[in-house]
Amino acid sequence: MFSKRYTPPLGCKKGQIDTPALLIDLDAMEFNLRAMAEFFEESTARLRPHFKTHKTPVIAHQQLEAGAIGITCAKLSEAEVLVASGVKDILIANQIVGSIKISRLADLAHHTRLIVAVDQEDNIRQLSASMQEAGSAIRVLVEVDVGLGRCGVHTNEEALHLAGIVSTSPGLEFSGLLGYEGQAVFIVDRAERVEAVEKAMGKLVEAANWIRKADLPCEIVSAGGTGTYDITGRFPGVTEVEAGSYVLMDTRYRQLDLPFRCALTLLATVISVPMPGRAVIDAGKKALSVEHGLPEVVGFEGIRLVNLHEEHGLIEVEPQRTELVPGQKIELLPSHVCTTVNLHDQFYALREGRLEAMWPIEGRGKLQ
Amino acid sequence: MFSKRYTPPLGCKKGQIDTPALLIDLDAMEFNLRAMAEFFEESTARLRPHFKTHKTPVIAHQQLEAGAIGITCAKLSEAEVLVASGVKDILIANQIVGSIKISRLADLAHHTRLIVAVDQEDNIRQLSASMQEAGSAIRVLVEVDVGLGRCGVHTNEEALHLAGIVSTSPGLEFSGLLGYEGQAVFIVDRAERVEAVEKAMGKLVEAANWIRKADLPCEIVSAGGTGTYDITGRFPGVTEVEAGSYVLMDTRYRQLDLPFRCALTLLATVISVPMPGRAVIDAGKKALSVEHGLPEVVGFEGIRLVNLHEEHGLIEVEPQRTELVPGQKIELLPSHVCTTVNLHDQFYALREGRLEAMWPIEGRGKLQ
Repeated sequence: MFSKRYTPPLGCKKGQIDTPALLIDLDAMEFNLRAMAEFFEESTARLRPHFKTHKTPVIAHQQLEAGAIGITCAKLSEAEVLVASGVKDILIANQIVGSIKISRLADLAHHTRLIVAVDQEDNIRQLSASMQEAGSAIRVLVEVDVGLGRCGVHTNEEALHLAGIVSTSPGLEFSGLLGYEGQAVFIVDRAERVEAVEKAMGKLVEAANWIRKADLPCEIVSAGGTGTYDITGRFPGVTEVEAGSYVLMDTRYRQLDLPFRCALTLLATVISVPMPGRAVIDAGKKALSVEHGLPEVVGFEGIRLVNLHEEHGLIEVEPQRTELVPGQKIELLPSHVCTTVNLHDQFYALREGRLEAMWPIEGRGKLQ
Repeated sequence: MFSKRYTPPLGCKKGQIDTPALLIDLDAMEFNLRAMAEFFEESTARLRPHFKTHKTPVIAHQQLEAGAIGITCAKLSEAEVLVASGVKDILIANQIVGSIKISRLADLAHHTRLIVAVDQEDNIRQLSASMQEAGSAIRVLVEVDVGLGRCGVHTNEEALHLAGIVSTSPGLEFSGLLGYEGQAVFIVDRAERVEAVEKAMGKLVEAANWIRKADLPCEIVSAGGTGTYDITGRFPGVTEVEAGSYVLMDTRYRQLDLPFRCALTLLATVISVPMPGRAVIDAGKKALSVEHGLPEVVGFEGIRLVNLHEEHGLIEVEPQRTELVPGQKIELLPSHVCTTVNLHDQFYALREGRLEAMWPIEGRGKLQ
């Protein structure tokens, strides 16, 4: 170390946090945890929230305490972080392909209750061989493409065929189906969204019933995202919902009028006011993702983010309405929570404007 | 640890590296280092390459060995990484604002030769006060906006005014001007690019001469990026060029017909072939940035990346021309090297298809 490492003291005010910094409003996050828990108290489906949004074990444990039956993640290395933090029931909602990863998966299955997705025969055989070699076991869902056009089988016959292979493969337990209606989660019009979800979930539940008719159990039917949790979560036959973003939210999901509050902001500092009507902040594309549009300045009238460079944000200021000065701190609402969180190493968790905790984002960058 | 941590053995073939993984072709990177060094052997300007592209000290040291006079970076925390790795001459091409950062900067100035940019009086006074308190000193460049519309002063008079304040501020040494012609670096048409650079550098050099006329030294005139290095680097009066991307390159800079080779690829695995004509890879927006367009599949005919989800890439395959199978590995050329590298923790450095080294990307996520 060649310079003081600055750590804001717990209890300090927001303004004492150095920037750029990702802030969580704990009251808002806890509101979201409760709102989602209340929805699922009235539902036959259960919540298995997605780790990809926050990538932070302490938040996953708060979701479990609020009633979630387990955690969903996208990557094996995320599951490794979750297991190390004590999570005991994990769905990797993805295909685990290749001998290196399958071998790690078989090791990990000794330490937790693991579920993975499959959509091809060879992969099932490799999973089974590796589980037998490691002496471990894993639960398996067959993935069905419900209209997203990504992974998954397309017909009831294919789903039944793979379910049959899984159910006779040592080390594997056939547990049901996975289908993600990602094509529906961002549809703003409620009626259109309902229609898209019902079409997708109709296909998934039909495949589950087809498999049950062949006397194979189909205990889990897993689907859903933050934009569809309340439709998918009430659809007869769906047993688990994988929503992630609800816990922190962002401006894109805010368009859907969901009963969740925006709990995540980026704190940034004005580093330059080069002329009237313009300001530059110390946060760019390396601090905020842009694929869902530009983030939004909060708490100020007449101030608008107009561009993000790599490490700079350009702000337009209406001089008649307000003024910014160098050193001033402002907050922005991310447009896409998941990819923004993945750029940061730490959350600063605040309550009523005071720092209550700092949480390492342990799943950040866990790509393999 | 609950599962085997997989580290590919040095000397192994590319295919033994788990995915997603960022690969550097060392022959191509060294070619780029030599090509840039040769250009600056013939130039009065010198190269101070930008750390933001690779964020990796071992590459910075290779740039210094190839003749660079120092390293440029964007953030104080990047400078801290560089100092810890032994780099002795660092330009932070940015304003350092706020008491927390200025105090860290003053500490760091004890251990290396540091240069920062300024564009406002208050900031200069705070820098000076903090340097005096720490008993350290720093070199300062006044930033001029040469048409990018970001930070910097706009007139010769303003530049001279700030230069005068710096030169009489204890702990600060006025060393010259900084101006970044970012509006020109991606202009594909060579003649248009030359015109835009000459306009921008004309403004910068004029400001430097204006300051010299007032008997202030203006030793450094720093500017330039990979798209403009050969124009800016020959412009009379420019003394330093800050190009970064040249060392690894990407598809956007490739459009400019520069004498550099694409040295960076992302290795990914096909995890699903859900139907003929389609494949899905294990790399999405958390492994590859998209603000400069979709990355490009290399080494295959008839295969095209058509979309990136968060953790999946969707590939279109022309069935008459080729076929992909699950488990197969493919490589992609990033469209924007700097933001893609910032998503990863490690480079896998290869020569002739064999793993020669693994380098931690120590500057990744250094936002503060």
